[in-house]
Amino acid sequence: MTLQAVVNIAEICAQKSVEQVVLSPGSRCAPLTIAFARHPKFMVRTVSDERAAAFIALGMAQTTGKPTVLICTSGTAALNYAPAVAEAYFQQVPLLILSADRPPEWVDQLDGQTIRQQNLFGQHSKHSYTFPADLSHPDAVWHSERMVSEALNESTSFPAGPVHINVPLREPFYPAPDEELKYNKQVKVIREEPQQYALSQMQALKLQEEILKYRKVLVLAGQNQQNEALLASVRTFADTTGTVVVGDTISNTHSIPKAVRHQDVIFANTDPEQLAKLQPDLLITFGKSIISKALKLYLRKYKPKAHWHLQPAGQVADTFQALTKIVRCAPQSFFTTMAGSTRADSNFASAWAAADKAAAAFLQQYTLEAPYSELPIVARVLQQLPQKSNLHLANSMSVRYANIVGLQPKQQVEVYANRGTSGIDGSTGTAVGCALTSPGITTLLTGDLAFFYDRNGLWHNYLPQNLRIVLLNNHAGGIFRLIDGPRQQPELAPYFETQQALNAENTARDFGMKYTSVQSMEELEQALPNFFSAAAGAGILEIFTDSAANGEAFEIYRQAVRSLRLPEA
Amino acid sequence: MTLQAVVNIAEICAQKSVEQVVLSPGSRCAPLTIAFARHPKFMVRTVSDERAAAFIALGMAQTTGKPTVLICTSGTAALNYAPAVAEAYFQQVPLLILSADRPPEWVDQLDGQTIRQQNLFGQHSKHSYTFPADLSHPDAVWHSERMVSEALNESTSFPAGPVHINVPLREPFYPAPDEELKYNKQVKVIREEPQQYALSQMQALKLQEEILKYRKVLVLAGQNQQNEALLASVRTFADTTGTVVVGDTISNTHSIPKAVRHQDVIFANTDPEQLAKLQPDLLITFGKSIISKALKLYLRKYKPKAHWHLQPAGQVADTFQALTKIVRCAPQSFFTTMAGSTRADSNFASAWAAADKAAAAFLQQYTLEAPYSELPIVARVLQQLPQKSNLHLANSMSVRYANIVGLQPKQQVEVYANRGTSGIDGSTGTAVGCALTSPGITTLLTGDLAFFYDRNGLWHNYLPQNLRIVLLNNHAGGIFRLIDGPRQQPELAPYFETQQALNAENTARDFGMKYTSVQSMEELEQALPNFFSAAAGAGILEIFTDSAANGEAFEIYRQAVRSLRLPEA
Repeated sequence: MTLQAVVNIAEICAQKSVEQVVLSPGSRCAPLTIAFARHPKFMVRTVSDERAAAFIALGMAQTTGKPTVLICTSGTAALNYAPAVAEAYFQQVPLLILSADRPPEWVDQLDGQTIRQQNLFGQHSKHSYTFPADLSHPDAVWHSERMVSEALNESTSFPAGPVHINVPLREPFYPAPDEELKYNKQVKVIREEPQQYALSQMQALKLQEEILKYRKVLVLAGQNQQNEALLASVRTFADTTGTVVVGDTISNTHSIPKAVRHQDVIFANTDPEQLAKLQPDLLITFGKSIISKALKLYLRKYKPKAHWHLQPAGQVADTFQALTKIVRCAPQSFFTTMAGSTRADSNFASAWAAADKAAAAFLQQYTLEAPYSELPIVARVLQQLPQKSNLHLANSMSVRYANIVGLQPKQQVEVYANRGTSGIDGSTGTAVGCALTSPGITTLLTGDLAFFYDRNGLWHNYLPQNLRIVLLNNHAGGIFRLIDGPRQQPELAPYFETQQALNAENTARDFGMKYTSVQSMEELEQALPNFFSAAAGAGILEIFTDSAANGEAFEIYRQAVRSLRLPEA
Repeated sequence: MTLQAVVNIAEICAQKSVEQVVLSPGSRCAPLTIAFARHPKFMVRTVSDERAAAFIALGMAQTTGKPTVLICTSGTAALNYAPAVAEAYFQQVPLLILSADRPPEWVDQLDGQTIRQQNLFGQHSKHSYTFPADLSHPDAVWHSERMVSEALNESTSFPAGPVHINVPLREPFYPAPDEELKYNKQVKVIREEPQQYALSQMQALKLQEEILKYRKVLVLAGQNQQNEALLASVRTFADTTGTVVVGDTISNTHSIPKAVRHQDVIFANTDPEQLAKLQPDLLITFGKSIISKALKLYLRKYKPKAHWHLQPAGQVADTFQALTKIVRCAPQSFFTTMAGSTRADSNFASAWAAADKAAAAFLQQYTLEAPYSELPIVARVLQQLPQKSNLHLANSMSVRYANIVGLQPKQQVEVYANRGTSGIDGSTGTAVGCALTSPGITTLLTGDLAFFYDRNGLWHNYLPQNLRIVLLNNHAGGIFRLIDGPRQQPELAPYFETQQALNAENTARDFGMKYTSVQSMEELEQALPNFFSAAAGAGILEIFTDSAANGEAFEIYRQAVRSLRLPEA
């Protein structure tokens, strides 16, 4: 293999701080495999199922904040990346995908493992490059090196996301047995000094003047990874202005003690008089998606007079059909600059605080008294999470239950969830990627459909001992029994719930994981401390419930929250 | 749910002979689910993992020849179809994909399960339609109905393939509890009388004159599904002209007694003198891909003077870099019309026949004498296949081993393999789809990587009792030890073979399948008769071998065939 250009891809990635590489074996990708495997700067792991490989890479990039490199062979291999690539795109997580391909003259010639790989991820990659197949001209060499820098810069510039380089390769794929690869330290690298997206003084003055018009200011955080500096700025802004901060578990604002966290309970309320008292006149949002459907519907109905969204660049969503202003700056710059810029209505803040307190009290009571079912189970599990650990919430009921319950500041739990596209397809792999690249315990809270869907997230030789899987097994897609519509249809059981018979015992055996199953609250409480102990090693805690019983218990919850009294102070 | 247009999709599909529907549950797709589930004409099955669902649908469409309808919800669900869709595209198998979507105004608004679904399969679907979100104008209704007919016509017209209709849906998704759906028998349906692609008389005369120039005529069949009429025409053409017919297992030409089937052995030979005697002056090909790399390389080196490819329509591959003429007609029309049109060189035919006979004799000897390893194991398994059964060959070693061994006419085995893209990603699901829609036994011959990759092909409630899985477990991607290049690299074990620890015992337990494992030829021979008996029910026969031992035994085979003497008569 004299393909120095491929060896250079590895060197450029190393110089641009890539550390994690996930590859799926193949012959066509051998030059890439060897170039990355022999380079001393990378941690290279092999995962055979490309769908799982890509979600593992996503989990790594989530925790490290750096692009993970994905390497696969030609053919449908890269198509199996597509679900994780779309998730990375919408969750703004950096990935660099290197797909080996046939050279152009052999595409559509009925050769094996050949599809049309150019721009394979369509609108779900930030950019798609074609590596030059011929490098005889020096400009082609320049192109080949430039493109790797460009791709990595693109993957991390705001909004971060997946970037694809399709790499056509001709034989020979393998170096001679005694051939040494030469990593050229002098290879061309384009570094990027990133934009800070600070608010200018003029902008700040204008916004400081404008914000004085509003007395009921609500700061709502969408999905954000844990970011101490950002959270400190939000906290300072809130403390100095008296504004209310609200965020779902996936916003990681639960580390702010005063942040409202029970919006799912509060806005399940149907009393217009109570709801009106919580209506903001200025809504300030930042980050990505919101889980709480109750809060979304509330804000769409009880619209603020103004809605400012803070986002440095890129397309902006009008999530509440109320957007009036896009502020192009880093949220942290906004909150720092705007600290003390207004003094909000203290009644408004107290109404929110009181509502949150009432919701918390209600939840505590409900979860104590409720029959054995998923919501109180999740409450118990979340209470027992190890301090300073990671929590990955699978779609779709796991993340919703967790969002109802909420997390407490002292837990110092970082929350991850694939809410870019909200698929059930890769939660296990993503949690594995997270566990592989972070020191503490990573807990995956998942349901049976999501878990077995992505069973191959565990199929490799790198089972992280800090992984804990809490599996809510109701032998069905329980969500369909909890939402209106499907549960009144004759098709509920066969075509929506999709009853499935598996439990995870054989899976745990297959992958050498500790396995515990529980069938009651007592068993659960007994099992949790040991399960979460650092010494326990990788394990699955399977919590069996009955789908119909969950439905009944959840209906009691829903009835209760609809008429919950939200005191004002 | 008053969305009559969605109900009409089901009715149009029913009138256009769709029978099989595979759906993956979701809320957004509920109107589609209910419209198809309540229609009396469909067999509707639910498979949670969309990747597996699509391969199962592919297997059904392979055996029935009719489009299978796939239904999924919004978000990454449809992206999980992509590997099977690409396979269907290149294997020319009809699928109709109905993906539910958010209405356009909610795309990119941070709602859950929302991606950019238009034209999701890029260059791997024949056509991509967007169902109208608004049906208030009568032209939109006409459009909505017309598009379903168009899509189905497109999916089956030559070359058949996958067609995608993206269906944006607004709430409500569910009919009232007492609401009955009305299937309108008078719905607009556009029928298509398919083109027969017959050779015209003028064309026939011209070709009949032209073929007289050639005395060494070789007919080479690419991948084709079993087609009695086509095979009869090939047989007649060969018998009346003295031409040689050669085909891989996936061409299903093994039912023609005289067809050459040991090309993998014959062209492993390295003696130029022997090889020159087999060189055709006219090569006539039809069908899709060729497995035999030895034959491909041979024909690229020993090029025919002319290469005619018979293909009714669509892009044509120049597989041997020797293509001179594309004949736009149905292969059957060509062979029928051209019967008796020439009298080929009988020495050429005898050379091929003798070579095939020598190769067969060698193989028989080798498989009798070889140590316990995969090639002789596959030979034993293929000999014991039930008569009139289906055989699905997984990628990548399974299909290659089977192609070396070949099948005999009296076995009447129909062969399927995902050789459109040659991925390992969906063999199990495809075989399940095949078994679900055909009466006899369907055997899947697969390796451990392919099997565990697609374990979810078994994760549903429709385990077909006529399914037999023969699993060659060498705990690795054994192919990398069998081909030159990787086996000389230090990265062989960790980054190419990807050793994996699983065996299928737990999987069999999970899915309620009979499980037998064997570790020697004696155990295998003892196990096969019962395993293949009709009464045995769905089972897994796991054959353990050692990857290194396979490599050594295969090396002996390779050395032997290189110098095999191919007598001339």
